[in-house]
Amino acid sequence: MSKHIYAFGSGNTEGDGTMKDTLGGKGAGLAEMSKAGVPVPPGFTISTQVCNLFFENGNKVPAAIQAEMEQQLQKLEQTMAQKLGDSQDPLLVSVRSGAKFSMPGMMDTILNLGLNDKTTKALAKKSGNPRFAYDCYRRFIQMFGAVVLEIERDQFEDQLTALKKKRKAKLDTDLTADDLIQLADQFKALVKKKTKSDFPQNPRKQLDMARDAVFRSWHNPRANHYRRMNEISVDLGTGVNVQTMVFGNLGETSATGVGFTRNPATGEKVFYGEFLTNAQGEDVVAGIRTPRPISELKDLMPDAYHELERITTNLENHYRDVQDFEFTIQDHKLYMLQTRNGKRTGPAAVRIAVEMAEEKLISKEEAVLRVDPAQLDQLLHPVLEKKSAASLSRLAVGLPASPGAAVGRIVFTADEAVKQAAKGPVLLVRAETTPDDIHGMEVAKGILTSRGGMTSHAAVVARGMGTPCVAGAGDLNVDTKAKRLKAGKKILKEGDWLSLDGTTGDVFAGQAQTIDPDPSSGHFAKFMEWVDTFRTIGVRANAEVPRDAKKARKFGAEGIGLCRTEHMFFEGARIEHMRAMILADNEKDRRKALKKLLPMQRKDFRDLFTVMDGYPVIIRTLDPPLHEFLPKREDLMVEIATLKASKKHHGLKAKEKLLERVEELHEFNPMLGHRGCRLGITFPEITEMQAQAIFEAAVQCAKKGIKVIPEVMIPLVGDVRELRDQKRIVVEAAEKVFANAGMKVDYMVGTMIEVPRGALTADKVAEEAEFFSFGTNDLTQTTFGFSRDDSGSFIQEYQKRHIFEQDPFAVLDREGVGALIKIAIEKGRKTRPNLEIGICGEHGGDPKSVEFCVHAGLNYVSASPFRVPIAKLAAAQAALSKGKEERMRTA
Amino acid sequence: MSKHIYAFGSGNTEGDGTMKDTLGGKGAGLAEMSKAGVPVPPGFTISTQVCNLFFENGNKVPAAIQAEMEQQLQKLEQTMAQKLGDSQDPLLVSVRSGAKFSMPGMMDTILNLGLNDKTTKALAKKSGNPRFAYDCYRRFIQMFGAVVLEIERDQFEDQLTALKKKRKAKLDTDLTADDLIQLADQFKALVKKKTKSDFPQNPRKQLDMARDAVFRSWHNPRANHYRRMNEISVDLGTGVNVQTMVFGNLGETSATGVGFTRNPATGEKVFYGEFLTNAQGEDVVAGIRTPRPISELKDLMPDAYHELERITTNLENHYRDVQDFEFTIQDHKLYMLQTRNGKRTGPAAVRIAVEMAEEKLISKEEAVLRVDPAQLDQLLHPVLEKKSAASLSRLAVGLPASPGAAVGRIVFTADEAVKQAAKGPVLLVRAETTPDDIHGMEVAKGILTSRGGMTSHAAVVARGMGTPCVAGAGDLNVDTKAKRLKAGKKILKEGDWLSLDGTTGDVFAGQAQTIDPDPSSGHFAKFMEWVDTFRTIGVRANAEVPRDAKKARKFGAEGIGLCRTEHMFFEGARIEHMRAMILADNEKDRRKALKKLLPMQRKDFRDLFTVMDGYPVIIRTLDPPLHEFLPKREDLMVEIATLKASKKHHGLKAKEKLLERVEELHEFNPMLGHRGCRLGITFPEITEMQAQAIFEAAVQCAKKGIKVIPEVMIPLVGDVRELRDQKRIVVEAAEKVFANAGMKVDYMVGTMIEVPRGALTADKVAEEAEFFSFGTNDLTQTTFGFSRDDSGSFIQEYQKRHIFEQDPFAVLDREGVGALIKIAIEKGRKTRPNLEIGICGEHGGDPKSVEFCVHAGLNYVSASPFRVPIAKLAAAQAALSKGKEERMRTA
Repeated sequence: MSKHIYAFGSGNTEGDGTMKDTLGGKGAGLAEMSKAGVPVPPGFTISTQVCNLFFENGNKVPAAIQAEMEQQLQKLEQTMAQKLGDSQDPLLVSVRSGAKFSMPGMMDTILNLGLNDKTTKALAKKSGNPRFAYDCYRRFIQMFGAVVLEIERDQFEDQLTALKKKRKAKLDTDLTADDLIQLADQFKALVKKKTKSDFPQNPRKQLDMARDAVFRSWHNPRANHYRRMNEISVDLGTGVNVQTMVFGNLGETSATGVGFTRNPATGEKVFYGEFLTNAQGEDVVAGIRTPRPISELKDLMPDAYHELERITTNLENHYRDVQDFEFTIQDHKLYMLQTRNGKRTGPAAVRIAVEMAEEKLISKEEAVLRVDPAQLDQLLHPVLEKKSAASLSRLAVGLPASPGAAVGRIVFTADEAVKQAAKGPVLLVRAETTPDDIHGMEVAKGILTSRGGMTSHAAVVARGMGTPCVAGAGDLNVDTKAKRLKAGKKILKEGDWLSLDGTTGDVFAGQAQTIDPDPSSGHFAKFMEWVDTFRTIGVRANAEVPRDAKKARKFGAEGIGLCRTEHMFFEGARIEHMRAMILADNEKDRRKALKKLLPMQRKDFRDLFTVMDGYPVIIRTLDPPLHEFLPKREDLMVEIATLKASKKHHGLKAKEKLLERVEELHEFNPMLGHRGCRLGITFPEITEMQAQAIFEAAVQCAKKGIKVIPEVMIPLVGDVRELRDQKRIVVEAAEKVFANAGMKVDYMVGTMIEVPRGALTADKVAEEAEFFSFGTNDLTQTTFGFSRDDSGSFIQEYQKRHIFEQDPFAVLDREGVGALIKIAIEKGRKTRPNLEIGICGEHGGDPKSVEFCVHAGLNYVSASPFRVPIAKLAAAQAALSKGKEERMRTA
Repeated sequence: MSKHIYAFGSGNTEGDGTMKDTLGGKGAGLAEMSKAGVPVPPGFTISTQVCNLFFENGNKVPAAIQAEMEQQLQKLEQTMAQKLGDSQDPLLVSVRSGAKFSMPGMMDTILNLGLNDKTTKALAKKSGNPRFAYDCYRRFIQMFGAVVLEIERDQFEDQLTALKKKRKAKLDTDLTADDLIQLADQFKALVKKKTKSDFPQNPRKQLDMARDAVFRSWHNPRANHYRRMNEISVDLGTGVNVQTMVFGNLGETSATGVGFTRNPATGEKVFYGEFLTNAQGEDVVAGIRTPRPISELKDLMPDAYHELERITTNLENHYRDVQDFEFTIQDHKLYMLQTRNGKRTGPAAVRIAVEMAEEKLISKEEAVLRVDPAQLDQLLHPVLEKKSAASLSRLAVGLPASPGAAVGRIVFTADEAVKQAAKGPVLLVRAETTPDDIHGMEVAKGILTSRGGMTSHAAVVARGMGTPCVAGAGDLNVDTKAKRLKAGKKILKEGDWLSLDGTTGDVFAGQAQTIDPDPSSGHFAKFMEWVDTFRTIGVRANAEVPRDAKKARKFGAEGIGLCRTEHMFFEGARIEHMRAMILADNEKDRRKALKKLLPMQRKDFRDLFTVMDGYPVIIRTLDPPLHEFLPKREDLMVEIATLKASKKHHGLKAKEKLLERVEELHEFNPMLGHRGCRLGITFPEITEMQAQAIFEAAVQCAKKGIKVIPEVMIPLVGDVRELRDQKRIVVEAAEKVFANAGMKVDYMVGTMIEVPRGALTADKVAEEAEFFSFGTNDLTQTTFGFSRDDSGSFIQEYQKRHIFEQDPFAVLDREGVGALIKIAIEKGRKTRPNLEIGICGEHGGDPKSVEFCVHAGLNYVSASPFRVPIAKLAAAQAALSKGKEERMRTA
């Protein structure tokens, strides 16, 4: 029979730190510390496998394992020379969960197990401290009652509070032994009332019940939620640690505390922590008594303090990472209860990694692997100042669509945003945004929408701009006409202050403070330098305007992976020319309007090439359906109906005519409509104008000595003949421009692979395409058959029901979309071995997706400027992990 | 050097009938006839390869081939003992095109080549018939002028007409020799005026020019269009036949004619044809003189007639198919100029195939292969009576969306259709139809829309009902409010007569006659019996209501491949319950509404099972987005705006509330939105109700002795977990019903594969799915990334520009969609070898797509009831051709 329970803390510790799968993180840590000679109260760990067996066996521990535990318990009793339930010297234990990955506070813990009416008396006698003994007892009944017997915690707290009030006691420690005896009796009565049974007096039975409750807690809602958030498999199970109690509440010579070997908020190398005297572990975090900074322990109990410092420094050196530890001092003697690698903020993660590498504690390679790419975000955006945010009322939680904090006054229209932005910060609040809102989005400090998902227009554009955005906050009702924002009964008006956190999705009424981080800090810069040395694929940025391109360069982008030319058509007078072009019903008029757009486009590209001197710039030809540039159909219908009903005929004819054209362009499913290369094929003169603008700009820049590397990208290609048609136009335009200029510029023509057919026929497409760029937003939409704008209504439900673990618009779906990408790469490179392949969908900035891209053999990823460092780090980590089996997780 | 020119008609005919690739159809026919001893005027065929060489060589025949032609010409001159351009006995030839596949009237022909001022005199002298000689000359100038010199045909005709008028001549034959001499001079003057050169007098040069013109005609617009229509590759090229002239215009002892060995309209076995005495070939078809029925030739020239009958009968036996032949009688001597397999109508094709098999001329297998599946359509729908249609003015040509002819009075709304239909036939005319129009579509004789493609709502529903439909007639403007149909300046009102042909897309103003064909005719029934013996896969029908199911059975469907349950929710009171269900904002209210729908659904299924006794019935759970059941958003907005502007507040609140819910359900891309299994997952009670209705109906039928085979199909599955969720609900409902009923019914649960991800992960999906059905409408939409409702605006343009050869919604795209289907089949059967696989998209009724399905290994196809015979024939043909390389064409 295989072994399921492992002793630790005594002479014969049976596990070690490598056994996290079996022992869980806490159990492995206790075993490792024991082996290293650290003072750890002895005990044993029931393995995580037992958790699965428990559930398979109908929420019961199998008999064989029950027997194994019996043996381990006997061994422990021998070691401690104490017996569970002994009326003279009872063994008391704690029972704690401990899964492979730390899930702080998510599962349950029981202390002081083994106490009953009899053993408590023994404890009182032995310790000579009845107050301590009954404090332990009432705590045990309280925890056991809540965790095992599932009585509401508040019911116990209410009685404690009532007693304190009666006794005019400020702190728990102000209660006397007698008070606590009375409280224990009250608690037992409560248990009896709630469970119709006496509080279990048999310590052996207490242990079984507590163990089973810990296993059950693996499936409590908090734990389920945490696992989902952190993508932890439910199959891992939790271990159970049964450990001899040591007491920090044995009077003023005892204490308990937690700490970190370095500051987890800043990364600074200082001994960091808190403690309380005469307390048990949960008091430190409960917030009833204010814990004291660990530096004060130095004066209070200098020996224990120095011992703690020595041990934890050794532990940090041993584990080669910041340690997050728990300790108890029982009558001046130090015990370590737990150590684990400490969680830390993004800035801390970077600083710790860099400093540890500089201390030669870890290699540079390890340093790069130590920082979670997602954490870098914290270094790149302003954050809400916590206290000021905590003082505000939270209106809603939406999708964290574009990270960073923003504070400003509410405006409901883009025009108003522009008007008010001059006077102070504004937040643009819309039901949804459209390309018409661009000018408002540009000036707003943040964007809030009540509709749309992570890849809705608002979200995509905001991320591109680096503007904080909370999208799809469905609990909010945005009434643009009335200029009101409703959240339940609360109503905010235009001009009211609003604060939002695009990293968490939180929306607050009122004005919070924000903190601007410094991305050019020494640690960050050094860290990114190391990242670049390990990285094997390129990282470009998606950007249209010089401002974003400059940002991209600042963040280290090695080119533009996607310039969406349509974004250039919404500004100022351009939209008018664009509309004239669309409303033209013949080629001649269309060309007339395009001619006006030509010099503007040329300047756009000239500016972009100038900023990106020496780096490739991928320019996509016009992509969105034309009606995006026109007023909305339903708005026009309403305007016309209103004019008619109120018998106002002025301007009616013009509106009706406009509506006629809008009706012609109206589409049931614009995402699947007349857009992408389909536009360029039916209106070749548009592609012609854009190509001319690109090459004229290229030639003009080249003449000034700027190194220009244009790559012209044709969108939405599903068949090589589409690309052939458009490529011919581009090549002809280039040759014409070059002939006029008397010089040539090297360029490529390629395509986006963003519909399944493009991927499935990539061998053919590569006959014409000199590069591929995966447009994974659209490819995800078409592969799944759902629209990013409409999927909000069911994707959350899907995640709740475990149909999806992740939103496929946030994390690339390897099984479906990934399969198409692999097909496309294989087929494409078969035709054209040197095919340049990249990705320019939103996934290009998602670490897991970047990992996939590195393993799939892409040449580069392209992300929004603010995500370039994240993509770089993810790419470096993927390169480092490539081939290392232990890091190869399947999403 | 390879041979490019082949002699025929003399002793040493160099080609034969198998060489269609090289000689073209006409050339191969001439060679084959020559070999069989049929009197054919000698000549030679320039191979189709030369056509390609001609274009590759810059529209010039390469020198080596020019030399080869010189040799063949000399041989011909020796055989005929005549010389081209000889002043005593000139050789005259015809120059005709002839491609591999017959393209009647598409390319050009030149007769009497070799005539000039000098040789015409010689011909006059030799024939003793100056009138004949100059008639030939003027014809030659006319044809050569039009075809080679590209002078408008009308210019010649005008002069001929003017002369006839001047001479008061009714017929060409009334003109004298002198008249014709004058006409030839006029024609030459016309040529000189138009080309600034004299009419070419050198016969050798005439021959080269004519040959090159024939090659060029391969690319004339008519030919291009014909090839596109008939999917003939442009690479095939045309041959050129140079053949000694024989003359049907040598006086009343001469004649020319065309004929068929059986009646090509009905298939009846009668000698069938027309002729004219004293005429050349083109006179018979030109319509100036009315040709005489061939039976009259028997009295006029009995020897020639019997010889013709004997030869053509032999030819039919030789080719084992109906022959379409051309002959000329020169001074009582019969010459055969051409024979080819005759084109025929659908009814004729069936009758000829059946009768030839009964005559043992062909095998039953061949009989089945002889009928083009698309032609069967003509046997299944009424057709427009030609003459009555010709007398009407054609308003527009739209997409031939659902075959058959329909005549009725115009109505613009479904309600009006129902009202008027009682009084007489109505045609429903809409800009587009929606599910709200179903009741009107059901009573209308035909449907006409100005928007939407071959798979728009109107088209799909009409085909399902077998109602003729012309869709997307973009030249029409439908003004529903004003009740007017505008076509250019022509305006039709409600109640006006309209005729449409859903087989061709023609729309006529006025009332045409229609002819009802008889699908139960003896030949058709026998033919379908044979078809069924060769067929290897099943054919089911898509049907919802008993009426359609009965139709499906009548047409031989072996089950229901797709029952779209949503169609059941639009009728009568149901839509109200459905709306109540949708407007409910909690599960309880939703269940209340569903409870009202349950008995209705149960009855639907009971009726369906009863009709389909013994056959499987696939029932799809609710698929469309819920807002399809609600009033349109923009209509509500306009109504509200109108009420507000006119200060009418009655009913405003209710409308505003409704709009609020409609807004909530509004989607940017409904096709990619909250529909399919996503509905059943978020509202499990809908699936539950539907499953309960299915199984209760099944049990009730089974108790009556009806053999029920239900297959429950979950739509739009992209991930096995979606299916698992829905399957669990279905299985639980089944078990509950079975427990209550005390009996079980065998059933299956499966899924539609209609998004790429479903296909890409089919191995996983098949873990749950007991059957797959390819929903190729949606799969085509998602694979290409275009919406069937919106693609009209560019697909036609794509076909024009040869980016697509076919509309992928009409003919399954093998390269992209087909690749996904193959992946899904392979992966699905790997997991579940006995997986039942079918197709229920529109493609299930398209012959080419059916062929693909047979070769891909599907178990069945499912088509609309009216297309079942077509699908059956296509399936039989594919089975017969399976493995026969020569029939394996790639679409």
